[in-house]
Amino acid sequence: MMALDGVRALVFDVFGTVVDWRGGVAREAAPFLARHGARLDPPAFADAWRRRYQPAMEAVRTGARPFTRLDVLHRENLEAVLPEAGIDPARVPPAELDALNLAWHRLDPWPDSVAGLTRLKARYIIGPLSNGNIILMTSMAKRAGLPWDVILGSEVSRAYKPTPEAYLRTAEVLAMRPEEVCLVAAHNNDLAAARRCGLRTAFVARPTEHGPGQTKDLAPEGDWDVVGADFGDLAGQLGL
Amino acid sequence: MMALDGVRALVFDVFGTVVDWRGGVAREAAPFLARHGARLDPPAFADAWRRRYQPAMEAVRTGARPFTRLDVLHRENLEAVLPEAGIDPARVPPAELDALNLAWHRLDPWPDSVAGLTRLKARYIIGPLSNGNIILMTSMAKRAGLPWDVILGSEVSRAYKPTPEAYLRTAEVLAMRPEEVCLVAAHNNDLAAARRCGLRTAFVARPTEHGPGQTKDLAPEGDWDVVGADFGDLAGQLGL
Repeated sequence: MMALDGVRALVFDVFGTVVDWRGGVAREAAPFLARHGARLDPPAFADAWRRRYQPAMEAVRTGARPFTRLDVLHRENLEAVLPEAGIDPARVPPAELDALNLAWHRLDPWPDSVAGLTRLKARYIIGPLSNGNIILMTSMAKRAGLPWDVILGSEVSRAYKPTPEAYLRTAEVLAMRPEEVCLVAAHNNDLAAARRCGLRTAFVARPTEHGPGQTKDLAPEGDWDVVGADFGDLAGQLGL
Repeated sequence: MMALDGVRALVFDVFGTVVDWRGGVAREAAPFLARHGARLDPPAFADAWRRRYQPAMEAVRTGARPFTRLDVLHRENLEAVLPEAGIDPARVPPAELDALNLAWHRLDPWPDSVAGLTRLKARYIIGPLSNGNIILMTSMAKRAGLPWDVILGSEVSRAYKPTPEAYLRTAEVLAMRPEEVCLVAAHNNDLAAARRCGLRTAFVARPTEHGPGQTKDLAPEGDWDVVGADFGDLAGQLGL
């Protein structure tokens, strides 16, 4: 009896689980920060930008704001975070900010991601279940070679994780029962929310997502259906 | 100056343009029809089922019915069409009808489709802009090897072609201006609707979509931006 018996689709958290957002944003922002004499180094800037991610989505989750895709939230957050780096956003041409905002489209996968996904794709429908919007996920996949069968996530479900609708509407779009869908994530809270909706769960640790001093999500904190060291190990455990 | 200068995404009509729905549905339905002693041959049954496609979507287009995905409409249409074949749907187990309804997920591509799409994918984001729903397009692509970057279409836009929102919301999701998106289709009316929304247009004739006696869409009926003999010819004309 295999851990994921009856599962037909694997859906993936992306930022942190499939790709290294911190390293990628730091790399993409570095020339911009140097040009504008920023007082934050690139990884600290990536962290500061990312700190505004959850609060921005929270306005949508609570209904205070209609659904707004993540590229728009990232762009607003960029203007908000620049003063932290000592940069006045009003003095930067909007087109330059638009270009920097695409940093989130150009994140590198973890070394095992593409090979692991390719193995998993042989048996399962695979797709992102990310808070990232459709064109963000599509551009990222095309650049990085992520072999998704379908782009799912917030812009399809019109809900941000961990809102239940983000998981339940994804299963509905797949025409599957929740237990036929497994979320793969490096974040225990995401898996807990998916499990509450009836999805199956797979944890893969990404111990450097937040840099060398990471303290959270270093290990599984629930009895998830599968725990893999990386996507290759996950595929191996599933007999692929 | 190339015909599609400035275009960044090619979106495709699917039923008839990328895949042979008539041959595929006939093949999938043949054992069912034989088992139940149908009085229609498989291609005639496929035609009869398909004749109910536009009227079913029209109820959604007019707002008489909330958006309902195509798999559901196909399933309703199946029950409605069976009496035409001399079969009483009430005497067929629902699971057998559910299985037959998946015929639309198992359509074969035209011989040039996969190779042509693979060439086009080298420069453009490619995806279906079909009235088919997400899991229908995803299952079809996985079986047939269609190398889509993203699954777009009615379930993403919540609108059925040729409603303008079907085209305009697709461009919006792609974060592109309409003129940066080109619809590829074998149907002149689909291209005309896309052009009215500002999209670019590419026609590829599929002269046997409706069988050997086809009378419509045998040639372009507008000055479409590109006209290709098939997807390979289209790729060649675009220098790919």
